[in-house]
Amino acid sequence: MTDPLPSGATIGILGGGQLGRMLAVAASRLGLRAHVFEPAPNPPAGDVAHRLTTAPYEDTAALDAFAATVDVVTYEFENIPTAALDRIEAARAIRPNRRALAISQDRVAEKTFLNEIGLATAPWRAVNGPEDLTAAIAEIGTPGILKTTRLGYDGKGQARIASPSDTEAALAAMGGAAAVYEGFIGFSAEISVIAARGADGAVAAFDPGENVHEGGILRTTTVPARIPPALRSDAVLTTGRILNALDYVGVIGVELFVTPRGLIVNEIAPRVHNSGHWTQNGCAVDQFEQHVRAVAGWPLGDGARHSDVTMENLIGNDMLRVPDIAREPGAALHLYGKAETRPGRKMGHVNRVRPRT
Amino acid sequence: MTDPLPSGATIGILGGGQLGRMLAVAASRLGLRAHVFEPAPNPPAGDVAHRLTTAPYEDTAALDAFAATVDVVTYEFENIPTAALDRIEAARAIRPNRRALAISQDRVAEKTFLNEIGLATAPWRAVNGPEDLTAAIAEIGTPGILKTTRLGYDGKGQARIASPSDTEAALAAMGGAAAVYEGFIGFSAEISVIAARGADGAVAAFDPGENVHEGGILRTTTVPARIPPALRSDAVLTTGRILNALDYVGVIGVELFVTPRGLIVNEIAPRVHNSGHWTQNGCAVDQFEQHVRAVAGWPLGDGARHSDVTMENLIGNDMLRVPDIAREPGAALHLYGKAETRPGRKMGHVNRVRPRT
Repeated sequence: MTDPLPSGATIGILGGGQLGRMLAVAASRLGLRAHVFEPAPNPPAGDVAHRLTTAPYEDTAALDAFAATVDVVTYEFENIPTAALDRIEAARAIRPNRRALAISQDRVAEKTFLNEIGLATAPWRAVNGPEDLTAAIAEIGTPGILKTTRLGYDGKGQARIASPSDTEAALAAMGGAAAVYEGFIGFSAEISVIAARGADGAVAAFDPGENVHEGGILRTTTVPARIPPALRSDAVLTTGRILNALDYVGVIGVELFVTPRGLIVNEIAPRVHNSGHWTQNGCAVDQFEQHVRAVAGWPLGDGARHSDVTMENLIGNDMLRVPDIAREPGAALHLYGKAETRPGRKMGHVNRVRPRT
Repeated sequence: MTDPLPSGATIGILGGGQLGRMLAVAASRLGLRAHVFEPAPNPPAGDVAHRLTTAPYEDTAALDAFAATVDVVTYEFENIPTAALDRIEAARAIRPNRRALAISQDRVAEKTFLNEIGLATAPWRAVNGPEDLTAAIAEIGTPGILKTTRLGYDGKGQARIASPSDTEAALAAMGGAAAVYEGFIGFSAEISVIAARGADGAVAAFDPGENVHEGGILRTTTVPARIPPALRSDAVLTTGRILNALDYVGVIGVELFVTPRGLIVNEIAPRVHNSGHWTQNGCAVDQFEQHVRAVAGWPLGDGARHSDVTMENLIGNDMLRVPDIAREPGAALHLYGKAETRPGRKMGHVNRVRPRT
């Protein structure tokens, strides 16, 4: 694909959650349609998609039909079965590319890639059994954390190791899966950079945001992050290096720890990212539109920050506060239309907008 | 309807053009679904609606089925046949109410209403034949303009009268329809106020915008309008008076002329309005969301202006400029996904954003 997609063309989106929903809305702003592929019934993205396919990722006929109706394919989450991607890619380009997806799906591949391009990570070692773990702890020390290398465990597959005596329980928690041991990093803040790379190789980054987590779930992102200008530049340059090394097309989310020794890359997500939701009310062109522009072969838009924003996720019973938030000055609500409220479930978010500092 | 509509509820939208499209997107931000009713196939709003009914307004079975699936009904244009509205209203509330719609559909009713609540209009007289027109010209003078009282003629049904000798041709242009003669008003600017009134009676107005027309079509709206603060207040208070007098629920667009004698009301539109598109990139809550909030029984949101904006309509071949506009700093594109570009057809708009003055 070389020419930008024209009005009326269709973006295929794998995954029908809130990210797919907001991508479909962004596509509409550019005159493009969205066709969403999602195994679960009544997905949030179905409300605003031109077409919705409800089928499992193993349904090759559904995958073929999906690919035949779209002009390019993107995704809103990383854990799409490889066979489904192979099937789709035989017919249509997938953006961001498979390498970015493969790296983000495997912690060992991700850290190896990051270190190879000269970026710092937490000290780590691959662990495929008790001997590996013993050696890793001897090398890196405790405390640390053992994680399965593959994602898709929804917060499971992680075990803290406070001292060498915890190794047996930690290994058991992996359930025999390949794992990675990471040394703990003392950090003063977690920031993230949401950036895009266009099909033409142009790179544009949004201002870094500062993240606060609660119980392993992102609670707030505040922009601007309270970090010195030099670190901001570092964060943006780091992200640009990742984008170029991957020959990436689309939006990426890069989580970084601010440490006394500088920035440490925590994780990369090859898609629009929760910590980039603030851009909806802080920029003329938000992360969702930037992603659609990139995958559709359009030039990137202007992501300059016109306002300061704090994004707060609305999780589970936070929905009870919506009537109050709806009346709040400066509050921009974004609800996902999920029928059922469950503890820990992301139901929406609110961007609280302030004049730019 | 007293309680605010919950997540997953459905707004019925009569009309599937770009206004319906952007209303459907706004509904999604509040977790609401849109069901669009539109006689023409493949309407712009269909791309982002949860459901689309393609049927003529005379199809009572389709109207009943539509009404049965929605929680409240609104509309994106004024010219909906009365019988269709009657049919729908038997099952579901229509917001804004029928009186607002009736007044905006009839120039005589509109001007009578405005004058009755103490608002100035151009001098006018109803014209139902040659005698009326002669009397009107004797009273008001020339130049003036003869217009059919009912809308729906797509720019037709208007004739300028430069001198009394033009009356015969002007009457012929009306085709026997009821008409109104309006004296010309010398004005220094046309502004419009986009404002909302909630189901609770609360009123919120966006900052007045300054409009420039070309060939009878809105070309640009710039906010803030270059008018003194006292006139801004007047414009907002005028709009509030209209909203309250109509016991209105929803967003209204009020076009006003700035004259040496103060503000003159030109026209009211009982819906979201082209001259309010700037709010998409100038406010945390835009006119589309404000309208959805009102008709859904939600509290109105914060429509304070965070940025200055010039909105430019992209009409017909203006679409050829899209690749350049897409690269422009500060430009936020909004395309309507219309398959066919035609002269005079509104294909999209661009909001050019600047720091707030």
